[in-house]
Amino acid sequence: MCGIAGTINVPLASETIRMMLHALQNRGQEAAGIVSIDGIKKHEYRLKGTVNEFPQEELDALVGSIAIGHNRYPTATNSDGPKNMQPFLMTVDNEPIAIAHNGNFTNIPTLKAQDLTGVPFVSESDTEVFFRLLLRAWRKDLLEKSIIDTLAKMQGSCTAIITLPGRLVAIRDSTGNRPLVWGRCGDGYAIASESSALDAIGVLQWQEVKPGTMVSFTTDGSVITSKEFGDGKLRLCPFEWVYFAQITSNIFGIPVSDIREAFGRELAKEDVLEADLVLGIPDSGTLSATGYGEASSTGTFAPHAIMRRHNTGRTFIKSGQAKRERGVADKFGFATDKIAGKRVVVVDDSLVRGTTSRKITEELRARGATQVHWRIPSPPVIGPCHYGIATKTGELLAADHTVDQMREYIDADSLEFLSLDRFKEVIERHGVSASDCCFACMDGNYWTKD
Amino acid sequence: MCGIAGTINVPLASETIRMMLHALQNRGQEAAGIVSIDGIKKHEYRLKGTVNEFPQEELDALVGSIAIGHNRYPTATNSDGPKNMQPFLMTVDNEPIAIAHNGNFTNIPTLKAQDLTGVPFVSESDTEVFFRLLLRAWRKDLLEKSIIDTLAKMQGSCTAIITLPGRLVAIRDSTGNRPLVWGRCGDGYAIASESSALDAIGVLQWQEVKPGTMVSFTTDGSVITSKEFGDGKLRLCPFEWVYFAQITSNIFGIPVSDIREAFGRELAKEDVLEADLVLGIPDSGTLSATGYGEASSTGTFAPHAIMRRHNTGRTFIKSGQAKRERGVADKFGFATDKIAGKRVVVVDDSLVRGTTSRKITEELRARGATQVHWRIPSPPVIGPCHYGIATKTGELLAADHTVDQMREYIDADSLEFLSLDRFKEVIERHGVSASDCCFACMDGNYWTKD
Amino acid sequence: MCGIAGTINVPLASETIRMMLHALQNRGQEAAGIVSIDGIKKHEYRLKGTVNEFPQEELDALVGSIAIGHNRYPTATNSDGPKNMQPFLMTVDNEPIAIAHNGNFTNIPTLKAQDLTGVPFVSESDTEVFFRLLLRAWRKDLLEKSIIDTLAKMQGSCTAIITLPGRLVAIRDSTGNRPLVWGRCGDGYAIASESSALDAIGVLQWQEVKPGTMVSFTTDGSVITSKEFGDGKLRLCPFEWVYFAQITSNIFGIPVSDIREAFGRELAKEDVLEADLVLGIPDSGTLSATGYGEASSTGTFAPHAIMRRHNTGRTFIKSGQAKRERGVADKFGFATDKIAGKRVVVVDDSLVRGTTSRKITEELRARGATQVHWRIPSPPVIGPCHYGIATKTGELLAADHTVDQMREYIDADSLEFLSLDRFKEVIERHGVSASDCCFACMDGNYWTKD
Amino acid sequence: MCGIAGTINVPLASETIRMMLHALQNRGQEAAGIVSIDGIKKHEYRLKGTVNEFPQEELDALVGSIAIGHNRYPTATNSDGPKNMQPFLMTVDNEPIAIAHNGNFTNIPTLKAQDLTGVPFVSESDTEVFFRLLLRAWRKDLLEKSIIDTLAKMQGSCTAIITLPGRLVAIRDSTGNRPLVWGRCGDGYAIASESSALDAIGVLQWQEVKPGTMVSFTTDGSVITSKEFGDGKLRLCPFEWVYFAQITSNIFGIPVSDIREAFGRELAKEDVLEADLVLGIPDSGTLSATGYGEASSTGTFAPHAIMRRHNTGRTFIKSGQAKRERGVADKFGFATDKIAGKRVVVVDDSLVRGTTSRKITEELRARGATQVHWRIPSPPVIGPCHYGIATKTGELLAADHTVDQMREYIDADSLEFLSLDRFKEVIERHGVSASDCCFACMDGNYWTKD
Repeated sequence: MCGIAGTINVPLASETIRMMLHALQNRGQEAAGIVSIDGIKKHEYRLKGTVNEFPQEELDALVGSIAIGHNRYPTATNSDGPKNMQPFLMTVDNEPIAIAHNGNFTNIPTLKAQDLTGVPFVSESDTEVFFRLLLRAWRKDLLEKSIIDTLAKMQGSCTAIITLPGRLVAIRDSTGNRPLVWGRCGDGYAIASESSALDAIGVLQWQEVKPGTMVSFTTDGSVITSKEFGDGKLRLCPFEWVYFAQITSNIFGIPVSDIREAFGRELAKEDVLEADLVLGIPDSGTLSATGYGEASSTGTFAPHAIMRRHNTGRTFIKSGQAKRERGVADKFGFATDKIAGKRVVVVDDSLVRGTTSRKITEELRARGATQVHWRIPSPPVIGPCHYGIATKTGELLAADHTVDQMREYIDADSLEFLSLDRFKEVIERHGVSASDCCFACMDGNYWTKD
Repeated sequence: MCGIAGTINVPLASETIRMMLHALQNRGQEAAGIVSIDGIKKHEYRLKGTVNEFPQEELDALVGSIAIGHNRYPTATNSDGPKNMQPFLMTVDNEPIAIAHNGNFTNIPTLKAQDLTGVPFVSESDTEVFFRLLLRAWRKDLLEKSIIDTLAKMQGSCTAIITLPGRLVAIRDSTGNRPLVWGRCGDGYAIASESSALDAIGVLQWQEVKPGTMVSFTTDGSVITSKEFGDGKLRLCPFEWVYFAQITSNIFGIPVSDIREAFGRELAKEDVLEADLVLGIPDSGTLSATGYGEASSTGTFAPHAIMRRHNTGRTFIKSGQAKRERGVADKFGFATDKIAGKRVVVVDDSLVRGTTSRKITEELRARGATQVHWRIPSPPVIGPCHYGIATKTGELLAADHTVDQMREYIDADSLEFLSLDRFKEVIERHGVSASDCCFACMDGNYWTKD
Repeated sequence: MCGIAGTINVPLASETIRMMLHALQNRGQEAAGIVSIDGIKKHEYRLKGTVNEFPQEELDALVGSIAIGHNRYPTATNSDGPKNMQPFLMTVDNEPIAIAHNGNFTNIPTLKAQDLTGVPFVSESDTEVFFRLLLRAWRKDLLEKSIIDTLAKMQGSCTAIITLPGRLVAIRDSTGNRPLVWGRCGDGYAIASESSALDAIGVLQWQEVKPGTMVSFTTDGSVITSKEFGDGKLRLCPFEWVYFAQITSNIFGIPVSDIREAFGRELAKEDVLEADLVLGIPDSGTLSATGYGEASSTGTFAPHAIMRRHNTGRTFIKSGQAKRERGVADKFGFATDKIAGKRVVVVDDSLVRGTTSRKITEELRARGATQVHWRIPSPPVIGPCHYGIATKTGELLAADHTVDQMREYIDADSLEFLSLDRFKEVIERHGVSASDCCFACMDGNYWTKD
Repeated sequence: MCGIAGTINVPLASETIRMMLHALQNRGQEAAGIVSIDGIKKHEYRLKGTVNEFPQEELDALVGSIAIGHNRYPTATNSDGPKNMQPFLMTVDNEPIAIAHNGNFTNIPTLKAQDLTGVPFVSESDTEVFFRLLLRAWRKDLLEKSIIDTLAKMQGSCTAIITLPGRLVAIRDSTGNRPLVWGRCGDGYAIASESSALDAIGVLQWQEVKPGTMVSFTTDGSVITSKEFGDGKLRLCPFEWVYFAQITSNIFGIPVSDIREAFGRELAKEDVLEADLVLGIPDSGTLSATGYGEASSTGTFAPHAIMRRHNTGRTFIKSGQAKRERGVADKFGFATDKIAGKRVVVVDDSLVRGTTSRKITEELRARGATQVHWRIPSPPVIGPCHYGIATKTGELLAADHTVDQMREYIDADSLEFLSLDRFKEVIERHGVSASDCCFACMDGNYWTKD
């Protein structure tokens, strides 16, 4: 999961990108980068951390009216040096070309072995493979065609923003797996992973980059939308609604806050649990807890009985050093006087590893909770995501535990998930066909071969 | 406003202080400091920023079983160098003595002119004045008496934690203006500004340091509570409930989340407004908005239609440099599709300068809100606080504007405050007598002369 | 001018490289980088500044028994970001290949236009062009041949150290323009720009990488020297003796300290000047001043009447900011009581821009020098160097001034250079044929076309 | 040993101090600080490291026409936090007073026990004790008298620069143990530990602050020299000539470079050694080696056969962490081809611990030196210095070793010191009476009791 943003023909382009990346911080905080294009001059800056850590003078130096940016999500790669930070930037025939990519390609080893023997790589990133294939297919007279043809070779998921000489291009693969939206911004245009990032810069009218299309924005003001490519089969990622996206975003046509509450309400519908208190794990569990609390007849909703401490300040942990174990109480605050003596229902967005959940149960019991019930408004995650989220098989509790074993592991009195069927029903009620979504991590039906 | 913490006879004393200061980050993010005492050896570290920015090796070097810490609130002082950071530490007859103070003394100029001519100061802090008077009154055989006698000379507000040879002392002035609590922590003890900080280190049983008392904790395990001093007149600060304290804290005997919701409910009771949507300014306005939304018959409560971006990353702005103006949209995200076409009620904890409120109104209108009504669940702030909060007279909108002028300034369709009388009623309903509170900033009745 | 170092089959390879780069700091202080190879894993770290600024944990992370390093000389490039720092590292067919290069290629624009259309570049460096041509010519079965064939396409000057799978390669072009030496280091081997760097790690026995040869060191301990390539025409750079190299190095077969003194002695031989005091501009002018002082009958040699302040501490000047003008007195200290009333002879290694010289004259006169005579033990520099030294035409005083105009510019009473003929004589007396040297910057006979 | 500087009525006072502290870097590189006074406003900045590491904006903020600065010498104190960095600054009756001190007081424990019971200290520094006694004796109408009276209570050594309201004061105790000079600087005045620092800012005419006098410089331009105080007994430190001072300084009336060479010449006079090569340990041993080489008939002087690497870049070693052992070859470069097969004489300024000397012997032998002879142009140091140099008894090789045992320890073929008698003779030949010097560390005759 990453966040991308681009802008063309907008004054203070880099500051505009900074604001969008800041609004997209939910999509990645490991590294941030901005590339700006000023005619044929390029400027670039990337750092480990978040975009608001850019020194002001570095931001000021990113001049030019075209700019793109990237927030990087923490990944498992060990040697995660500066070379893997995006946007990627290369110079071809003295013209700078840059790319920011959100998604994941699944056929990299095959491509490297078949099409790219002897080709030198500067990074470990799948994006570089796409970029090199693209630059190899490069025809100045057929810029857009080169991109679409190259994307056709890739398997997996791709939304990307690319700077070309005199234009900015937004592309979304035909599965539409990841979101990408654009809108008019003053006399120019802005593109971003989520609508909330456009909203943050005052672009209140926006539209999707439709799955299987490419939109080109030229410096002379034209907007050219490509013909649709691909097989038309959609694979929208429902975890965007459950966990990733900002609650103020509209993703795949659905307001995130609406559907997140609805998942919670649906979970409550057939729940006969008797309890005293409903609380949600902030931030992403809060709205589902609100929905659950409203729909349930069981006890008071106390949304703030758990609060999340903002990480004001950063303990800089050097890579390779052992990270000092700091308890869940350093991350969350508990309103002990609300919890003591109560039967508590805890709503969290999903249950992946289970380690934090177990510790939260322990903290709640230590504070006098007589029962601790967990309610998850999404189905169990039984397999890894190949399309942009860094979950490893070995870390997925649901991969090799029954629900009751999971309940035991997190030491809960009960544990319920929203079933896949009812999860799909909620989605359909919001106007999106379940057959247009990817449930691979929940049902194992992966749609790529490599 | 500052946050203080102390601990004695606890293993990893400094790490314990770090956890408490992290949980007290709401009380000040300008500077953080820890002093530890290891027999007669002392160790100290302070920095501009928050406690989680301490380098690990500096934290590790703070050995010893007695430690105190301090979070500093941003103040107006221009030359805010390292010397004003707390805890203060001095050595008398080879024994280190340190103090961490929350509050504000009001008779500093008088004391400096009358009692401290010719005395050299290393800082601009009022705490140093108290400390020097204390060290002047110092009698090894009457340590506690020296402290109480010195405090008697001070006007204003004071909760403090002081390390003495072989003991740790917590003191709270007789007005009880600021909170201070303590509890048993393993084989030792811990003290903190708020109960939530004790909760964060697993100290679930705690009690107040009663107004006008001093509690001494010795290295041999004794706890000695002083006789009460002072005139017994309480001056509890209600803004602790409204704004400052963590929502998971219990302040002056009242759970913060309870009373914050109640202020919102009270505000709704007689409100005949017709609207479509109730939203709260996070974080401190959210619970009052919840209360208002529940008690009001006017429209849906949409607590997350405004979200606050976490400040992931810090743009380090050097003191004296102009801080680049960054809009309210960089701080808050708006769920535009919920707001468009709606009559909106905005609930915020208080209204001080009005500048942010005005910008929020503007953003809401830009997103299609047809009406914007502001509701403040506390009375107008008409005067500065002399007892620990850095508000300047010139910045207080209510100081020289009528409510209608304020409404106009923030461009609202309507603006209502909770009246002082009803504010007091809510407090009394929660078991605290209004006559035990300080309302100086709301009614102008300051209780100190200098 | 840059410094390069490499090592294979040596324990603590990266620490060994650090020591050699530290000993080569004279060859570049703008940036430093180390790449290590551990089987097929690679590790890399580079920073703006010097190698002793590497954080210890970054150095420790550079594991592996093959390592190469690079000191970068300040260059005129404006956008001198991380991508131009060496060693370059790329991965081909999962095998990491890295290069550290000292020298300068002169036919880059031609090569880019003719051979590399459509090829994407990640940096502005000439080294990357060589590297890409090399990787294009790549044949696993003919690794060494690929390198030699690629070098044949390049014009200009090149010494380089390259890591290949299972081996380390040192190459020096047939002009021998820049030095490169190697020696046995324990059970492995070490390579460096200068002998003093090998000496620093205890490698006291060493030999040159002969011009027009490549030496390969394999992980199984073999040393394979290639057949000679190129036309056999040498172009040794005499400025290595005059200015660049460490005085403890032996360059092109001549101890630097010997020849530097000899240049000074030669200059004194026919000098009929009458003066009181001879002083040298430290550090590189000191030995020539010693030689001049010994050979001259004119006055006392006072080598330390000018001392250079070590730059303890660094005022970090951000690129793009105006560097505050700090006088020559901030860089040099003058023994005023030795200078007052004296006729002074100042010996400096060379005279390039003349700005510092003019200020030194001014300082000497301010301290009471009655006459100031400049003596330069090398010929005037009338043209830029195309082969590794960043001098721009516009900055060369001798390019468009006669010696007398130069004398006037630096406000000297007299100014003498060592003539090119006598400069050559000194070189020949030390056993190197002048016809094997490059004097392009002194006589304008450049030996490359592009 | 520390370096101090002050200036009054000089534009860019702080930049002037920076230049002087940079020129005094030889007197301490552990910490640097500047305090400036702008009317009754004060500004201060200190850091661990050297003055050229001051951020430009911090330097720019140090406005005001009075400024003082301090270079701190590394000391043995473990907890060497910011509070021990000078200048000390305190505010008395709203007037800032600051002090920068070079020297060491020996009766601190006595004073603390007798005169300062119950007085709180913010640092571990002896300077603070003096400062507190001074502030206690403080009489606004008798400012200068307060200082002289306070100094009379102190034992040990003191040169200091003090800012008072409307004036700057330079004081030197009656022993004159440490140097202090002043001169007119434009329309104002400048004071510094060494003449070379005044020279660096263009103050070429200067005079000593005479032992046992105080010179006051007022903002209205007056210069008032006090009557002499003290017993008139001088205790000049000869190690200023041997080791501490800049070679461009004139200390106690003698040019440092003159006497340093003379010590070397004297050492050679009766030396019958036969050798091939004389070399000096840079930087402070170089001039004595020059002198020795000139006066000796034994072999060639090769001053640069050992060179010192400048510490370009700093490996930041955290206090408390084990400093990685880095060999002498990382600090010095050896011209191996000059050393091989030679009988070598090594001249170093003094021999204190012997550890570096032993390693240098080892490196010389490894490079083929057939004999290694050490010659020290100063007497053995048999006791610690109580007057400003941080040598500990346990570290002094000469304290419990005969010369032959020392020779054995450093593995030399021979070792000779300049005898105390001849050392004194050289001093007397330069016009200073040996009876005016302190030789306590060489003969054990300490002149203070405590």
